Amino acid sequence: MTKIELKPIGFVHSDYTDTKQIPKGLGTKHEAEGMIEVLPEFEAGLKDIEGFSHLFVIWLFDRSQGFELAGTPPSDNREHGVFATRSPRRPNPIGLTVVRLVGREGRRLRVRGVDMLDNTPVLDIKPYLSSVADNELRRGWLAEAEARQKA
Amino acid sequence: MTKIELKPIGFVHSDYTDTKQIPKGLGTKHEAEGMIEVLPEFEAGLKDIEGFSHLFVIWLFDRSQGFELAGTPPSDNREHGVFATRSPRRPNPIGLTVVRLVGREGRRLRVRGVDMLDNTPVLDIKPYLSSVADNELRRGWLAEAEARQKA
Repeated sequence: MTKIELKPIGFVHSDYTDTKQIPKGLGTKHEAEGMIEVLPEFEAGLKDIEGFSHLFVIWLFDRSQGFELAGTPPSDNREHGVFATRSPRRPNPIGLTVVRLVGREGRRLRVRGVDMLDNTPVLDIKPYLSSVADNELRRGWLAEAEARQKA
Repeated sequence: MTKIELKPIGFVHSDYTDTKQIPKGLGTKHEAEGMIEVLPEFEAGLKDIEGFSHLFVIWLFDRSQGFELAGTPPSDNREHGVFATRSPRRPNPIGLTVVRLVGREGRRLRVRGVDMLDNTPVLDIKPYLSSVADNELRRGWLAEAEARQKA
């Protein structure tokens, strides 16, 4: 594949200016509020978004360099493949966060659940339409790491 | 932002060779099985992925051209903003699908819930770690379209 031009459709405003400030590890809940400011030329794409409680935000790890195919995440002391973790050092530096939409003022979306750095470029926003039922969900090494911590 | 080089980490094998074959509209359930074949150089990134029941697959709408900020989706007869729909004609042609991981054979992941065309380039795979509770989820215009159809 040749190069593809990705354009930011907006930017994240968050209180995090350094990755050290972002909660990580087992049991972390992301409750931080932030703002997604969509660029004026894309505002029309937000029509009716306020009806959704949750959104997928696809964004760029713009301050991450290179990638590792396996690494030890903050939530475990064992190594796992990059596609089984949320590591920022990925072959394609694309991030994905589910946020709760708290409010909209024009092209500004107030959201909860932010784990992105301030000024992170946003590539796409999609509506969150359905969940996997809890009784169907298996969480692999993460569940094992939690169990080991409790033991 | 300047151009960013995205590289496929693999490709989707599915029975869909034309978008017309992909179920769309209200109440659609994607139960189709398919395969994600990760390229040999990225296989090490799959370590421990088999412990997860569900995965996020981030992929490229490689056969979609241009974008529309608002459009009428197959599930409604009213117009909505692109960021409130799953339209393929997006400012950045990035797709997102939640699949169930049925099995792994080496660098081949057998998955259920495929809604991608055959040979779609895969950009990233991430573990699905938690769901939004059903009682917290609001589904905006989609719920309204469903209610109108039942009325």
